[in-house]
Amino acid sequence: MKLATYRNDNRDGRLMVVSRDLSRAIEAGERVPTLQYALDNWGRASPILEELYAALNRGDAAGSVAFDAERCASPLPRAYQWADGSAYLNHVELVRRARGADVPQSFYTDPLMYQGGSDAFLGPRDAIALRDPAWGLDFEGEVAVVTDDVPLGATVEICAGAIRLLMLVNDVSLRGLIPGELAKGFGFFQSKPASSFSPVAVTPDELGAAWSAGKVHLPLLVEYNGAFFGNPDAGVEMQFSFPELVAHVARTRELCAGSIIGSGTVSNKDRHRGSCCLAEVRMIETIEEGAPRTPFMKAGDRVRIEMKDASGNSIFGAIDQMVVAHD
Amino acid sequence: MKLATYRNDNRDGRLMVVSRDLSRAIEAGERVPTLQYALDNWGRASPILEELYAALNRGDAAGSVAFDAERCASPLPRAYQWADGSAYLNHVELVRRARGADVPQSFYTDPLMYQGGSDAFLGPRDAIALRDPAWGLDFEGEVAVVTDDVPLGATVEICAGAIRLLMLVNDVSLRGLIPGELAKGFGFFQSKPASSFSPVAVTPDELGAAWSAGKVHLPLLVEYNGAFFGNPDAGVEMQFSFPELVAHVARTRELCAGSIIGSGTVSNKDRHRGSCCLAEVRMIETIEEGAPRTPFMKAGDRVRIEMKDASGNSIFGAIDQMVVAHD
Repeated sequence: MKLATYRNDNRDGRLMVVSRDLSRAIEAGERVPTLQYALDNWGRASPILEELYAALNRGDAAGSVAFDAERCASPLPRAYQWADGSAYLNHVELVRRARGADVPQSFYTDPLMYQGGSDAFLGPRDAIALRDPAWGLDFEGEVAVVTDDVPLGATVEICAGAIRLLMLVNDVSLRGLIPGELAKGFGFFQSKPASSFSPVAVTPDELGAAWSAGKVHLPLLVEYNGAFFGNPDAGVEMQFSFPELVAHVARTRELCAGSIIGSGTVSNKDRHRGSCCLAEVRMIETIEEGAPRTPFMKAGDRVRIEMKDASGNSIFGAIDQMVVAHD
Repeated sequence: MKLATYRNDNRDGRLMVVSRDLSRAIEAGERVPTLQYALDNWGRASPILEELYAALNRGDAAGSVAFDAERCASPLPRAYQWADGSAYLNHVELVRRARGADVPQSFYTDPLMYQGGSDAFLGPRDAIALRDPAWGLDFEGEVAVVTDDVPLGATVEICAGAIRLLMLVNDVSLRGLIPGELAKGFGFFQSKPASSFSPVAVTPDELGAAWSAGKVHLPLLVEYNGAFFGNPDAGVEMQFSFPELVAHVARTRELCAGSIIGSGTVSNKDRHRGSCCLAEVRMIETIEEGAPRTPFMKAGDRVRIEMKDASGNSIFGAIDQMVVAHD
């Protein structure tokens, strides 16, 4: 099943069911007005949505319209939780190597995760407002899951069963603010402005065999200013599966339905697969050439993040965002 | 105006208007079903609520009932944002001194703040579930504000005008997990399980002259296992006002209505005022005696956090929580 949120007068928008090929969409209607409502009431809501989805794919859903990703907010325009892991350790290894530090052994067994702001996400086609180019604006291409309720202390198996949806993420980062914030000891805050998510969220079964062992075994496609930037496989070298990341959260607290848990920047050791953020390219340049060459984003720069199935069809629609200056 | 949320079958409960003396309450009704709804639509909702509040205080609100704090969830049972500052630098100075470190000069001009989990708060009288006593469970008594929408880059003056409500907080912390998490560099995560908030949230005007320059000039009363533990003045030695803390958030992103911004553990230099968390007492013991004596919380321990006006009347009702073991 594929779901999206069209903007309307409400802060949480209007839930849309989208056809598998992303060509058609239909309002879920008053019985399931928003995606958060669907997640709050998944047992009752999902059969209603599945029925609409089946009709849409058969081509006989009365009242369907052409799907327009430009009308989309993020599937959850605001959420009660956005927690982002850093599960691709190649990325962490590059960060550390670029500054001459080793990766602590514990990083291979204990996930890194930070709590992100979730009150006002950008939409998948929204401009990214930049107040100061010196802040070092960067994109980060990631995959994320949306959970149902998860009890305190839930096992990895229970967490696996609580994953309701998958999305792509652009975890917007202000690299210039990170060193100062991390030095303060409390983690990221101003350095992580609003993230954006793919136009469409999908249930795990939509990925078929590509959803296996709690990972998505498909390349994440990143284009920067219209050119290839990276296509690392999201199923390769992901040190912690999504169920393991969710269990990391649940170790000391329950999760409410609609919690979004991210993978961290997708990254493969194979350099031919490119990168999913500018910082990684700059780290490779630093390691190989002594200093970074690639600048961070400025007004007019554009990033596109997408994932396609084995037949080349877009699964989630594309995040496609341009930077604009903000006074 | 004073507002509370009674638990019901909905995740966000039912909004109640509470009389100034906390004796009576009345359902806000279908026009304003929840506190988040009120905050999402403050301009339209607050006159409706103010009218009910006036009637309740006059004693002629038909359908009012005795107010029962035991029925309360936190005013926002879940929220889109909970970001907590650390504005009482005496607390930070003690933390640092206990481990022989200085406070960086920048801490006096640049607020410390972390992003907390906000998807599932505890209620003001809920038990605190503890899976492992070795995690070092602690309470932290704080004050927090709830904001309206705040635009990106908002000035301190704009932020001051966007503060809609005040509450008390118990920012539950797992001290034993903090050193390991901070060493990983991404800030608090597992070490900050669900917080709880006072039964009642109040508009700033309820504080009269005690709400001044964006600070609450009243003692925060903390009892631990039935005995005095602290009564530091929340208006003294607060390095950053609430509007300044909100502006810190808004520097790189907008805030959505219903964002909760906390003060950090209230702390005065005057040792006679006691403390608002166990860790601070342990730090003083470490500084004065070489090692901490006071243990962290275990099953059966109880904390009470309250604030009274100049006449001795409770303003927000009391947070009163006991620890229970969780398998």
